[in-house]
Amino acid sequence: MYFVSTNDNKYNEIKDLLSKNGPITMHVEHKKIELREIQSNSLVEVAIAKVKQAFELVGQEVFVEDDGLFIDSLNGFPGVYSSFVYDTLGNNGIIDLLKNKTNRSATFKSVIAFSEGKLAKTFIGETKGLISNNIHDRGWGFDPIFIPENTNKCFGEMDLKSKNKVSHRRSAVVQFHRWYIQNKMI
Amino acid sequence: MYFVSTNDNKYNEIKDLLSKNGPITMHVEHKKIELREIQSNSLVEVAIAKVKQAFELVGQEVFVEDDGLFIDSLNGFPGVYSSFVYDTLGNNGIIDLLKNKTNRSATFKSVIAFSEGKLAKTFIGETKGLISNNIHDRGWGFDPIFIPENTNKCFGEMDLKSKNKVSHRRSAVVQFHRWYIQNKMI
Repeated sequence: MYFVSTNDNKYNEIKDLLSKNGPITMHVEHKKIELREIQSNSLVEVAIAKVKQAFELVGQEVFVEDDGLFIDSLNGFPGVYSSFVYDTLGNNGIIDLLKNKTNRSATFKSVIAFSEGKLAKTFIGETKGLISNNIHDRGWGFDPIFIPENTNKCFGEMDLKSKNKVSHRRSAVVQFHRWYIQNKMI
Repeated sequence: MYFVSTNDNKYNEIKDLLSKNGPITMHVEHKKIELREIQSNSLVEVAIAKVKQAFELVGQEVFVEDDGLFIDSLNGFPGVYSSFVYDTLGNNGIIDLLKNKTNRSATFKSVIAFSEGKLAKTFIGETKGLISNNIHDRGWGFDPIFIPENTNKCFGEMDLKSKNKVSHRRSAVVQFHRWYIQNKMI
């Protein structure tokens, strides 16, 4: 099975999650292809459009993963446009936008979409948390400013194994793995 | 010919521009259909994908218009995602992001894409200017914070006729009109 993404960090986290999750290992190969994204306020719609495109290119079992940071006091910004916002404003921009806000709640969402033909199957993971007051100089993407619930460290301060215990991506991968074993490996 | 957009403000500006621009009037009807947008850093790509979709739905001569505000010190943010950013952060968000920036230069870009079949033809208009220090409580979209070059008023403080003399949209519409008369009305 192929995981299509240009993001090495995502692949490393997903590979670790799949290898640790129960007795049956899924063999996943990383395929670095840039897929066209649609504009939609729904991560699920974006992921479905992407995996269909990925299947057309790869022609066999394939999955993609999309994630986004949804900040409550910013009406869900940056949401599905997280990677564009990270590239233009960076973590500094998010900190600036929250300077006068008392509510710093946010949700990191992950959607995995799997396809082996016409249909796509999706799995959604969420981690609630807070945006930190300062940027911690470690981790990728918004990890240096996102502190998951029930912890006092941001994602960026955790090593891969610790992040993989509590991340939005973990939740989506675990559901996907369970479903795949039950439906595709018997 | 149809102009496909859910935005009444755009239609009003374009209708005025087309009716004033030379002796030959183009008859345009407003069709309010929500079109799916692709994610791309290029306004032109977004507009082309949109007009192809619009032609499939309408089946006759059709055009769309996409615009975006590109702020230099924010690496082109909000750019092609201007309408999402307006809906989530609003003008307040842009003002917050520029609080510590000395460079307030920005460019408003407009792309018109026309189609009557498989191909699409595009026309690009640009207006350079500055982001104001405060929000002027008039106008739609980012008009309350964008001051075009060689003026001391923001778009929002101008009436439709004054804005239509200097806007990015004017420039795109004039090119489109000229091309259409020369190529399609003879």
